[in-house]
Amino acid sequence: MEEWRGMPVVGAMAEDFTGRLKKLADKGIVPTLAVVRVGDREDDLSYERGLNKRFDAVGAKVVSKVLPADVGQEELEKVVKDCDNDDGIHGILVFRPLPGSIDEKAVTALVSPLKDVDCMNTYNIAHTFMQDGMGHEPCTPRAVMELLKHYDYDLTGKNAVVVGRSMVVGKPLAMMLLKSNATVTICHTKTEGLADICKKADIICACAGVPGMITEEYMGEGQVLIDVGINVVDGKLVGDIDYEAAMKKAAYATPVPGGVGTVTTSCLLLNTIKSAENG
Amino acid sequence: MEEWRGMPVVGAMAEDFTGRLKKLADKGIVPTLAVVRVGDREDDLSYERGLNKRFDAVGAKVVSKVLPADVGQEELEKVVKDCDNDDGIHGILVFRPLPGSIDEKAVTALVSPLKDVDCMNTYNIAHTFMQDGMGHEPCTPRAVMELLKHYDYDLTGKNAVVVGRSMVVGKPLAMMLLKSNATVTICHTKTEGLADICKKADIICACAGVPGMITEEYMGEGQVLIDVGINVVDGKLVGDIDYEAAMKKAAYATPVPGGVGTVTTSCLLLNTIKSAENG
Repeated sequence: MEEWRGMPVVGAMAEDFTGRLKKLADKGIVPTLAVVRVGDREDDLSYERGLNKRFDAVGAKVVSKVLPADVGQEELEKVVKDCDNDDGIHGILVFRPLPGSIDEKAVTALVSPLKDVDCMNTYNIAHTFMQDGMGHEPCTPRAVMELLKHYDYDLTGKNAVVVGRSMVVGKPLAMMLLKSNATVTICHTKTEGLADICKKADIICACAGVPGMITEEYMGEGQVLIDVGINVVDGKLVGDIDYEAAMKKAAYATPVPGGVGTVTTSCLLLNTIKSAENG
Repeated sequence: MEEWRGMPVVGAMAEDFTGRLKKLADKGIVPTLAVVRVGDREDDLSYERGLNKRFDAVGAKVVSKVLPADVGQEELEKVVKDCDNDDGIHGILVFRPLPGSIDEKAVTALVSPLKDVDCMNTYNIAHTFMQDGMGHEPCTPRAVMELLKHYDYDLTGKNAVVVGRSMVVGKPLAMMLLKSNATVTICHTKTEGLADICKKADIICACAGVPGMITEEYMGEGQVLIDVGINVVDGKLVGDIDYEAAMKKAAYATPVPGGVGTVTTSCLLLNTIKSAENG
């Protein structure tokens, strides 16, 4: 089995950004992402660290707007509105879920489509559905596509199985695979005979959020296995795919950690650059 | 084979509307759809006649706004804006495609989400993707779902194959089938082994726009065959499914004409009523 790691993809994307960032710099523009964080949840902090590292590496910027866990609706909305009105900010990421007392939709709706680099709002969700090249796409499914592109995997006519139907990964990923001319099957908890369906796939994208659920009996010979799962088990990060089994049966597979997740922050950087170019 | 015709669905839906229309009438509200038509294309006229008939039958209203084929952008936009500002109009349908000289997106963007009963704009497209119960859904795929509901077909765990990936039918239909817990495979012109994929399905939804393409070799035993194709061949309406073959092999099938297409106008009526209720 050949391992498809995320870091080479990150490197190639960063290289691809160089010319674009140079052009922006010539106009005095530094692509800047505002991260709006309520409280200090460990996974938010960890993602924020990753973002800072990725943006720093290419000379783009992350600005953190940190609010107390008990922030009120009005104060939070003011922060988001100010970011949206600030010409020096090109993208806005609001960490979710927000506390239960907050009307999340009202907050995210304040972000204008161009700055909605995390695809929280209807404009970008609609264009992700249409796949017409407009708007921003959600970063995790886009990371899968960047990875497949980097490793030169042609999806045309391939039988792709997506396990999971969330709006964060499964459904947008299905639309992207379809746009790349794969035949796409979307599976979920109510799917019958999932192992058989997976076994016959050319490529399995696991995004169910169930640790190690894609075991050897789900695998055919010579498949591509893309693991989008990020689960913490006994303090360790594990994916949705049984990697031991993958090493025996797959042709190519992405590890967790070090696979798709690694590329996600680069996709947020990509969207922020796009936004800076079009602002 | 049992034929699943559209008229009984139309009848049941009309019955279901009675109470809702009565409540609206008590407030002096008659659900009213504005049809904006540029020129006199025969298929637009035919659809408009169908709409008038369906709306009339329950005491709802269709208002036609007819413009010459060479109408200018500004004049067309004014008509749409006036409809959108008119409290007596609850839904707006703009016949498309518009002439090439017209910026179609600029025109349809003038329709506010609540009046966008034909799901032309990003708000409703996004909610159709999310399937979160908000907004209006496109009428043809919704007609398929109403038909399946009427004939009491439980999609949970079923293997549904959608042939066609358009934004008018294929993709939104896939999202609706998924919401009903079917396992959904989306196929298209680049799909390999389509006949085999179809053969193994529990239900095939044909929306490719290719007359009679689903022949006997695509059919398994005891399937449900839903024909969303509307093609004119030698002046006659034919679907995407070879109906002779369906009669031999399927358990249930929808005819063309007289199947899904018959229900579409009732779904536009449904959206117009919803809009009047929420206006």
